Amino acid sequence: MDTSAYLKAHIRTVPDWPAPGVQFRDITPLLQDPKVFRVLIDVFVHRYMARGQRPDVVAGLDARGFIIGAVLAYELGVGFVPIRKKGKLPYTTVQESYELEYGSATVELHTDAVQKGERVLLIDDLIATGGTMLAGKRLLEKLGAQVLEGAAIVALPGLGGVQRLRDSGLALHTLVEFDDA
Amino acid sequence: MDTSAYLKAHIRTVPDWPAPGVQFRDITPLLQDPKVFRVLIDVFVHRYMARGQRPDVVAGLDARGFIIGAVLAYELGVGFVPIRKKGKLPYTTVQESYELEYGSATVELHTDAVQKGERVLLIDDLIATGGTMLAGKRLLEKLGAQVLEGAAIVALPGLGGVQRLRDSGLALHTLVEFDDA
Repeated sequence: MDTSAYLKAHIRTVPDWPAPGVQFRDITPLLQDPKVFRVLIDVFVHRYMARGQRPDVVAGLDARGFIIGAVLAYELGVGFVPIRKKGKLPYTTVQESYELEYGSATVELHTDAVQKGERVLLIDDLIATGGTMLAGKRLLEKLGAQVLEGAAIVALPGLGGVQRLRDSGLALHTLVEFDDA
Repeated sequence: MDTSAYLKAHIRTVPDWPAPGVQFRDITPLLQDPKVFRVLIDVFVHRYMARGQRPDVVAGLDARGFIIGAVLAYELGVGFVPIRKKGKLPYTTVQESYELEYGSATVELHTDAVQKGERVLLIDDLIATGGTMLAGKRLLEKLGAQVLEGAAIVALPGLGGVQRLRDSGLALHTLVEFDDA
């Protein structure tokens, strides 16, 4: 079994959650099994340790992106910065809003979280509509950083986010795909 | 400078946030500087690698507890399980509510996150009133796990949580104290 299939076999699909018709892809079993957790992290570590791929900073999206992002930052020997939902960061922030199916959401980043010209790896657990990751990219760019790549464990290309993020100029790296419509 | 003072020097105090009179202890500078981040994690790693102190699982409290907890689990070679605010975990859960200054909050844990008899390290960034950590302990115990210790970067003993958690029978390990009333 290749790594992608191995990881995919440890993702739990929860039907009709959080709403009827949605197949929720639950990554918690990947984290819970120490062997699988190690493979998951090491796949990312190997990629970003490579020449020319090494970021200066890892930025994780609230909250599952913190789990992968923090371990990766530690292993790469770089800093970790959280991008958070509105109202969670105490210091001065930049903000970006994005549309949800009903209403909108706002994410924030501390203004001193990254420096001009720093190469940032932006990470989350899953790319669906891509709204959160696109907002994260804009936050980092507002502060003058360069987003090296967007990374996630799971891509759901049928929901349009993968294309939307690529159209925005963001390189993407994901490990597992589900063909959700 | 000892380790505690070194870490304390990298915690940012934000006055009057999120409410007038509150001194918010912001741990994000600890994560952002790779050298400090390494020291922070390694202090925990050394403690929990020691004979008799090694957990079977690390459980992190939503959301800053994910950052430290995930790295620690990876370094110790054990699994990571998230304890989340209500409505975030898709599979069947156990729940615990606790009182806040105004109203109450509920945290959840997947029913298959830990096994009976497993020794769990419970981790968050900060202990204030202790409500979240106490609820986390109860969740783990509901599933038959044994909470080895509660750990956090920062303790604010003046807010009563440290005493309250010790009174509940939970051993605690924290790295930095602030004498907030």
